[in-house]
Amino acid sequence: MALKTADEERNELHSYKLAGRDYRPENTIIQIHHNAVGGGEPAIIAGPCSVESEAQIIETARLVKEQGAHLLRGGAFKPRTSPYSFQGLGEKGLKLLRKAGDETGLAVVTEVIDTTDIALVAEYADVLQIGSRNMQNFRLLKAVGRLNKPVLLKRGMAATLTEFLLSAEYILAEGNWQVILCERGIRTFADHARNTLDLNVVPAVKAVSHLPIIVDPSHGTGRRDLVEPMSLAALAAGADGLIIEVHPRPEESRSDAGQTIGPAQFSRLMDKIRRFIEWQKAYAEAAHTY
Amino acid sequence: MALKTADEERNELHSYKLAGRDYRPENTIIQIHHNAVGGGEPAIIAGPCSVESEAQIIETARLVKEQGAHLLRGGAFKPRTSPYSFQGLGEKGLKLLRKAGDETGLAVVTEVIDTTDIALVAEYADVLQIGSRNMQNFRLLKAVGRLNKPVLLKRGMAATLTEFLLSAEYILAEGNWQVILCERGIRTFADHARNTLDLNVVPAVKAVSHLPIIVDPSHGTGRRDLVEPMSLAALAAGADGLIIEVHPRPEESRSDAGQTIGPAQFSRLMDKIRRFIEWQKAYAEAAHTY
Amino acid sequence: MALKTADEERNELHSYKLAGRDYRPENTIIQIHHNAVGGGEPAIIAGPCSVESEAQIIETARLVKEQGAHLLRGGAFKPRTSPYSFQGLGEKGLKLLRKAGDETGLAVVTEVIDTTDIALVAEYADVLQIGSRNMQNFRLLKAVGRLNKPVLLKRGMAATLTEFLLSAEYILAEGNWQVILCERGIRTFADHARNTLDLNVVPAVKAVSHLPIIVDPSHGTGRRDLVEPMSLAALAAGADGLIIEVHPRPEESRSDAGQTIGPAQFSRLMDKIRRFIEWQKAYAEAAHTY
Amino acid sequence: MALKTADEERNELHSYKLAGRDYRPENTIIQIHHNAVGGGEPAIIAGPCSVESEAQIIETARLVKEQGAHLLRGGAFKPRTSPYSFQGLGEKGLKLLRKAGDETGLAVVTEVIDTTDIALVAEYADVLQIGSRNMQNFRLLKAVGRLNKPVLLKRGMAATLTEFLLSAEYILAEGNWQVILCERGIRTFADHARNTLDLNVVPAVKAVSHLPIIVDPSHGTGRRDLVEPMSLAALAAGADGLIIEVHPRPEESRSDAGQTIGPAQFSRLMDKIRRFIEWQKAYAEAAHTY
Repeated sequence: MALKTADEERNELHSYKLAGRDYRPENTIIQIHHNAVGGGEPAIIAGPCSVESEAQIIETARLVKEQGAHLLRGGAFKPRTSPYSFQGLGEKGLKLLRKAGDETGLAVVTEVIDTTDIALVAEYADVLQIGSRNMQNFRLLKAVGRLNKPVLLKRGMAATLTEFLLSAEYILAEGNWQVILCERGIRTFADHARNTLDLNVVPAVKAVSHLPIIVDPSHGTGRRDLVEPMSLAALAAGADGLIIEVHPRPEESRSDAGQTIGPAQFSRLMDKIRRFIEWQKAYAEAAHTY
Repeated sequence: MALKTADEERNELHSYKLAGRDYRPENTIIQIHHNAVGGGEPAIIAGPCSVESEAQIIETARLVKEQGAHLLRGGAFKPRTSPYSFQGLGEKGLKLLRKAGDETGLAVVTEVIDTTDIALVAEYADVLQIGSRNMQNFRLLKAVGRLNKPVLLKRGMAATLTEFLLSAEYILAEGNWQVILCERGIRTFADHARNTLDLNVVPAVKAVSHLPIIVDPSHGTGRRDLVEPMSLAALAAGADGLIIEVHPRPEESRSDAGQTIGPAQFSRLMDKIRRFIEWQKAYAEAAHTY
Repeated sequence: MALKTADEERNELHSYKLAGRDYRPENTIIQIHHNAVGGGEPAIIAGPCSVESEAQIIETARLVKEQGAHLLRGGAFKPRTSPYSFQGLGEKGLKLLRKAGDETGLAVVTEVIDTTDIALVAEYADVLQIGSRNMQNFRLLKAVGRLNKPVLLKRGMAATLTEFLLSAEYILAEGNWQVILCERGIRTFADHARNTLDLNVVPAVKAVSHLPIIVDPSHGTGRRDLVEPMSLAALAAGADGLIIEVHPRPEESRSDAGQTIGPAQFSRLMDKIRRFIEWQKAYAEAAHTY
Repeated sequence: MALKTADEERNELHSYKLAGRDYRPENTIIQIHHNAVGGGEPAIIAGPCSVESEAQIIETARLVKEQGAHLLRGGAFKPRTSPYSFQGLGEKGLKLLRKAGDETGLAVVTEVIDTTDIALVAEYADVLQIGSRNMQNFRLLKAVGRLNKPVLLKRGMAATLTEFLLSAEYILAEGNWQVILCERGIRTFADHARNTLDLNVVPAVKAVSHLPIIVDPSHGTGRRDLVEPMSLAALAAGADGLIIEVHPRPEESRSDAGQTIGPAQFSRLMDKIRRFIEWQKAYAEAAHTY
């Protein structure tokens, strides 16, 4: 096969063929058990940053289920900035997460951080998450692209929209079309939040891609008090769902305590989200009848 | 008076005394004719980027009034990146804007770009805007601080929250408490929009300051197709209002054409905003009765 | 005159005609008393952040003169983030700066922050500085463009190269060709320095513009210990000079103490700069004879 | 083992113990064949972005050796933004690189992008590179931490200094102390270069860590014409070396053509670097005798 010229290479940089609306005009809907992501009603994923113990994850699963969450999140393999921070419970964490999912009937989402763990993680998880730090771990993207499981792909902290969609393209090109994009905040000079949640990317994705996109207001802001307003804002901007950090006792959380909300705040948030979604539906129907 | 030490100076850097909630716990409400900004219901400011002609500004004023906007915007003195770009009609523009305001009963907002123009602009305008590029033009801030007119203070493209509030503090410290903050997008690496509209700043302002904050989705994104979703998102995040660029024929707009919406899109947007505000009120009342 | 179309406007955005090398291929050299900026040998501007007292500015002027600096800097009108910070001595500061310049034979550079002060500042200063926060204060740019004095134009904290050159263009278009550009650090996520000094902009300017560009390692890093390495790096990147904050007793400096160097460090730096410049000249000559 | 509290976790975030100067005050020197990185004289690593063919890599190795480079670079496993771009020759590329190194006596540096490739890459390479996109691929860091080979760790595009050093800490904590840091440009709003080469980080690293740091002006700017000035600037800022993309015919380069320099430019650059290093040595000696 003849080598491509540098110009041909460059032209390809912007061609997220499979991820683009030109290729597939209608929205991609990803079915996860009884829930559809991208199909209309926003999906709510909730749970602790890390799986810490059986009691903790079961308790959290019950409370988020009770409040109406659709999926349960929880980290077992944690990518941590410092080698001395808690790195997650590993396989034990996966088992506990699975158990919590089975007991509550919630599908479970957890992160995979290396190609060598994929088979193990896929055995327990319903959705595999690729974290921000791995958005351009192309070998990992290819490997999850060969699974028949939904993938939650988080945007890198300094990723452009084109790079984000080209990372999704790596997964699609291997045959796995079940990709859910996730905005989780970008790095900027602004210091009033841990990250700058970039909601512009939600309608910007919708304009060019058929893939669903959800928003993570917990990592996206790093501030517990910003989770509620930014959750609503994300849905108003058109997000297909939210992924929210919840812990029975946030102050005891072993990671990301500052951005994790507790049962009371989550209950209030879910009530508001439910009512907002009702409004969105009513508005959509009214707009339809004009 | 004894000079302060460097340490004393540094401590003052974070002390936006008057702008802070410690100083004044309740929200500041700014009355502009019949409308209150910060009082509850979001205020909608709409109009063209620049006043271009009598026909254009009158036509725009009528259409935005008809759709329910509360204030009319329009630039007469334009800060333009290039010296060869249209710099605005100056005093003639102010007169046309005033005329359009008077004919429709809308209060008018326009930018002042230099201390020497303040008296002139204040003669015609109901609200004086300080643009992003002048957020740290401290002499200009002090000068509008001596007026008895509301000031719309836009956040600088690379301003932290502390810097933003300290710029407001310059105005307050001179005696003018009628300051409306405005988020209009920040500079980041992201290239899917002209700026990155930072909605996190809305609840972050509410947490520490009593001043109202509105959002500019037109400059904040630079993309006409992002104005509607980001307008809704801004209100959902808690913004006290919106400032939106509208032109009878956007493609003929002499400045910022790419981000300006036309009559049909504005009508649709206002309808959606109205219904969203109704929902917000209903939700607030329901939450109250729990 | 027919209005321009939006497209025509847009095309003009990138047209810094007068500032571009297409218009004037050879480097612009700006003569300030006995010194030439842009003419080959780098110019060193040194002095305190603010003029604080007669003793302080005279002492500083003598020490920087003795060490070989070419111009004296010192702020009289200070743009300060907080209204409660020291705002400079105003006209008194200008007089003291002039006196220090006259006693030592150094030309003096000081900032002008408002159009209404230009005549006053121009009476005392040899070079007028436009600060970062005013890089897009277009009225101020036009006003200094009508002077017959060199202008030191600092890059805005979030200014692109095109915007920087278009701000210079405002000055040139009014007839004043004596513009010295100055890189002083940009706003990024990086937190190991107060700003990110962007030395890439030095050769990037040289590639497209004939204007000289100097570098401010004091504001550019905000760290005293980074001033020496970044000064050398700036010259190695091709800068036409440096502007450095020096104070007889930095820890007593009323502003920017953390980035200001003292006599011993300045002496060491000037020695190193002198030797580096000698090397640069020797290298240029050797390269010439190949 | 008792779980740590959230506060204890947080405190650890800033503790790059092993990478810090508190732990090891003297500079770490890394010996690679006859060359020492961090030992005084800067090390020059040069070569193509990708190994493309035997003829290309042998030709490049000879030319960079002839001009005085100390190590040969060349990618075999390429992390590419698009799945449709050239992904490198894989093992075949490693063999060709090794052959070119052996023929010229140059040690070779190449990237490893996944834990499953480490053994293979380590078989052929003298130095393993961890690319920017993998700076926080913690499993990969741990794995190269168990090798007895030098590791070249590139800074992530949005990594703070603390994060950069904590990634190095992952490698050190596993027992491999041969870590060379590399600045390669960060993501900012600035658009005059592909990245913003952050030279401030060089002295900032030196202030807190004993690890050597080199600079990549090719990726760091993405502009061929900026490579020379920024190379000199990096050395002047105190860098322990440079890594430069060189290709016999840059315009034919299969990746990164725009930032790759050719033989004539490399020859000129090496001559200038050599002379600059001589000056640095002479200055250091002179400074010593004061």
